[in-house]
Amino acid sequence: MLLGERVNEGPFDHVTIDNVAASRGVIAHLAGLGRQRIAAIGDQPYETGETAQFRTQGYLEGLEIACLPADRRLIVPASRFHREAGAQAMRQLLELRNPPDAVFCYNDLLAAGAIRVLLAAGLRVPEDVAVAGFDDIEEGHYSTPTLTSLAPDKRRIAAMAVEQLFRRLEGAADDPRVLQAPFELQARESTLGRATPATPS
Amino acid sequence: MLLGERVNEGPFDHVTIDNVAASRGVIAHLAGLGRQRIAAIGDQPYETGETAQFRTQGYLEGLEIACLPADRRLIVPASRFHREAGAQAMRQLLELRNPPDAVFCYNDLLAAGAIRVLLAAGLRVPEDVAVAGFDDIEEGHYSTPTLTSLAPDKRRIAAMAVEQLFRRLEGAADDPRVLQAPFELQARESTLGRATPATPS
Repeated sequence: MLLGERVNEGPFDHVTIDNVAASRGVIAHLAGLGRQRIAAIGDQPYETGETAQFRTQGYLEGLEIACLPADRRLIVPASRFHREAGAQAMRQLLELRNPPDAVFCYNDLLAAGAIRVLLAAGLRVPEDVAVAGFDDIEEGHYSTPTLTSLAPDKRRIAAMAVEQLFRRLEGAADDPRVLQAPFELQARESTLGRATPATPS
Repeated sequence: MLLGERVNEGPFDHVTIDNVAASRGVIAHLAGLGRQRIAAIGDQPYETGETAQFRTQGYLEGLEIACLPADRRLIVPASRFHREAGAQAMRQLLELRNPPDAVFCYNDLLAAGAIRVLLAAGLRVPEDVAVAGFDDIEEGHYSTPTLTSLAPDKRRIAAMAVEQLFRRLEGAADDPRVLQAPFELQARESTLGRATPATPS
């Protein structure tokens, strides 16, 4: 039984979310706010980077749906999903002649690093650059600005995993399954601005 | 072998830092910046709260050294050291007729919650209220403002623990030891303001 990510079509049952659809949803949110140059931080264009590649696919599909042009310079890979990688990628994006007005980060730690670099450079989040993350970790509920993030339904993931384990324990011998849990975009200050409720949610 | 905290004078070797002295140092820093009403978040006035009690002791001693009066209303307990506890404690402090101009939080998660409440209330950190934490976790290196924090020397703690384990493995049978590792106050934007270097450190 595999929870979350890494290998698809492996020999195990696998509970995950539809990363392509989830990422399309993030881009729809940013495009809906009028952003025109949306960057992506976290691509992993190599064998073990399937999850990241799904998010890049959703990012590109989301741009197409929103009738926004894709610009390869706006896709910055990150081999590790931690804060310093997000900071480095954001510095690289700010060096572009035409920097982004929004950034989709493939997890919340990358987003924390990216936001730090933006604010330290004197830019405003989200007025100058909107930032969205992925995972919906607690840190982003308390940061300033609070972080917009794609929230996988962790309760359902756990419940589906336990359910499938029971099926196996009861003898079900069909092929490994990929089960998809629901998700939700939690829109907060890092894309919506400070007009949202002031207390942590 | 015990690392960090909870029980002192137990039947184990114990590597820790001098929590009283460390906390005095935090108060000296805040008082040195001219703060007059320094609050403390995280007291645990019950048997399992020894570490917190040492920090409260250091807080009170630090006030005395700085010739600042102690005010029991400025000491807010927290049974768990997480973000929401820090947020709740800060809300309570803001309801005082004479709220604090600085807050010493007994860990960095409490500080993150406290800062969120201050900023959401429209107060500035540190101009209106300076905030210091304890532990020096990475989150505070990237938050805005970056977090001033008491940093135990984690490398030395690990090295001292391994050294002492080897002593025991080689047969040393003397009484359990309490070994104290060094620490350092990492002063950042949450007490110093934004004049500090803009890049994460």
